[in-house]
Amino acid sequence: MTQQPHLRFVTLLGSLRQGSINGALAKALPALAPADVNIEHLGSIGEFPHYDADIQSAGFPTPVTVMGASILAADAVIIVLPEYNYSVPGVLKNALDWISRLPNTPFAGKPVAIQSASPGALGGARAQYHLRQMLVFLDAHVLNKPEVMIGQAATKIDVQTSVISDVTTCNFVSSQLEALAILVRGRTRN
Amino acid sequence: MTQQPHLRFVTLLGSLRQGSINGALAKALPALAPADVNIEHLGSIGEFPHYDADIQSAGFPTPVTVMGASILAADAVIIVLPEYNYSVPGVLKNALDWISRLPNTPFAGKPVAIQSASPGALGGARAQYHLRQMLVFLDAHVLNKPEVMIGQAATKIDVQTSVISDVTTCNFVSSQLEALAILVRGRTRN
Amino acid sequence: MTQQPHLRFVTLLGSLRQGSINGALAKALPALAPADVNIEHLGSIGEFPHYDADIQSAGFPTPVTVMGASILAADAVIIVLPEYNYSVPGVLKNALDWISRLPNTPFAGKPVAIQSASPGALGGARAQYHLRQMLVFLDAHVLNKPEVMIGQAATKIDVQTSVISDVTTCNFVSSQLEALAILVRGRTRN
Amino acid sequence: MTQQPHLRFVTLLGSLRQGSINGALAKALPALAPADVNIEHLGSIGEFPHYDADIQSAGFPTPVTVMGASILAADAVIIVLPEYNYSVPGVLKNALDWISRLPNTPFAGKPVAIQSASPGALGGARAQYHLRQMLVFLDAHVLNKPEVMIGQAATKIDVQTSVISDVTTCNFVSSQLEALAILVRGRTRN
Repeated sequence: MTQQPHLRFVTLLGSLRQGSINGALAKALPALAPADVNIEHLGSIGEFPHYDADIQSAGFPTPVTVMGASILAADAVIIVLPEYNYSVPGVLKNALDWISRLPNTPFAGKPVAIQSASPGALGGARAQYHLRQMLVFLDAHVLNKPEVMIGQAATKIDVQTSVISDVTTCNFVSSQLEALAILVRGRTRN
Repeated sequence: MTQQPHLRFVTLLGSLRQGSINGALAKALPALAPADVNIEHLGSIGEFPHYDADIQSAGFPTPVTVMGASILAADAVIIVLPEYNYSVPGVLKNALDWISRLPNTPFAGKPVAIQSASPGALGGARAQYHLRQMLVFLDAHVLNKPEVMIGQAATKIDVQTSVISDVTTCNFVSSQLEALAILVRGRTRN
Repeated sequence: MTQQPHLRFVTLLGSLRQGSINGALAKALPALAPADVNIEHLGSIGEFPHYDADIQSAGFPTPVTVMGASILAADAVIIVLPEYNYSVPGVLKNALDWISRLPNTPFAGKPVAIQSASPGALGGARAQYHLRQMLVFLDAHVLNKPEVMIGQAATKIDVQTSVISDVTTCNFVSSQLEALAILVRGRTRN
Repeated sequence: MTQQPHLRFVTLLGSLRQGSINGALAKALPALAPADVNIEHLGSIGEFPHYDADIQSAGFPTPVTVMGASILAADAVIIVLPEYNYSVPGVLKNALDWISRLPNTPFAGKPVAIQSASPGALGGARAQYHLRQMLVFLDAHVLNKPEVMIGQAATKIDVQTSVISDVTTCNFVSSQLEALAILVRGRTRN
């Protein structure tokens, strides 16, 4: 009887501030993952310069190539993002603008799940649908369900401890990680 | 008989690279404006840091407050942008993320027109509809028509001289500037 | 001292079923309108045939021309809709597909407000942004704020009596009607 | 040496009129399919009533259950649609509103490709992204690439003969059918 190798997921965080509720959400994920899934955090997208084709012509910045290689090597990516102005944070879109131009196309065919948390009722929904449209171009395989949009997030996630205190939310997030693992396994089985 | 005062429009450019076709488009606008409209260019959004609420807490960066004041003082804004990954460039979204948090809400009620140029057939359409959704939150008054989406832009705009060489495109862009002036005049009449 | 004439708003309902929570919401609006605003209900979109250019060639169906004339004559339109499958109900989109082709373009320049109610947390938000995109083409003047998206609607609206039982929601809906009246007055002042 | 069984694709057409360019496009597909793919056409969505939960309570209309069963039995669905008012035709959305409520969820996990043709430059792009958002809820597996958006369609598709006369377009459409077959094969291999 053989055992499946562990899966390796990485989180891509769309917020820079300390004390980010989405940062806390990302940090909570490894403890909620299925037993055969390891989750690691990608570096900060704050180290990317603003995308500029002239910079690209001179060579991709190191943080871009490093993150691209990590995504390429991962079995799946979990993008955790706040919503700014009814869409994706500029700094996260900027990271995608860089990564999308890497010659090894790290997102092509890559399983991706999306999570967002917000103080309002919508939980970042508007940002998620914009992100999904971007990921069509990047040719990612985005998980449909369950969608994780955590409204009134301050009452559900403890930013100090990075723990999801709301049980329903906790179970919901876990179920998405399971669904992502199933998506990955389904794609790689022989 | 009294004369109406000139209107002051400003352009907000969503691309950083030298040789940008959208940069050339923006530069072409002053010569195409109605006689009673002056068009000036806002500074570069490349000087904004990545949005970070912790930076904001320490005070808005000077380029942000300067651009916000210029938008506030203008009669209308023309956003000229490329499409990256089926959406708005991250660097432009980042600028909006900053400006949207200024206490004087520069975009509230502000007439806005959108233009985009791209090498493909769609002319940046996907980016424009995402931008429109952002501008709902910013409470801008976005011009509906005509929409300026310039496909196959390299054949229509001369990047070296910043001249729109295609007559149809030229007239179309002019007609949008006229429509924007009419929108502004209609809102401020007594 | 002159008094302003009353404004005439009409509601366009995107649901057909009896017992619709959005139908109840629409019925609640006249009682919540500013004193100088009358709100009437347009007829049922269920009487429109499926849009078919061949039918149009033979002449617009009467329910279409009647509704178009009512919209044209109104000072503003309030579209009240459920969300189906993350977008606008097909039957409502079908009504817009017909009305958009009327030669008198009833929605052109028309002030429009959007309201939606749903059992889920998002309150129909996804449908509203799709609707806004459609209304760009129809050249309507859509109110930006406040956005009325009523989540957990069954706890806030009494379908039997068509009364909004939740005070916060009630005030919020009223404030949108006021904002719409201000938008209309601002456009028509001399 | 075993041979793979043929795949069965079905087309779902979003236009009702005779002489529809999208209808011609749909009819052209069987001849462009890979050798091991059969393409059949679903019935007309014009036979569905407007979606109404009260009708549903009395029982799904026969055309709905028939189409749902055909989709469920198919290996993949190709949705061919015009763009109306910057979105999906109401009549097509109405069909999805019905099918989405069938207890056997015909679209869940189903591979789907999207094609649109239009007289304008954008080729129906706006409708496609709205459709993609709907298909998230329906939990379909939508092909990312290549996207088939045929602009200036009257010069590329012969409505009389249902032949794609433009060679580039023809090859492009074929390549999407191949990509869809690969997607299906990849999901069902053991």
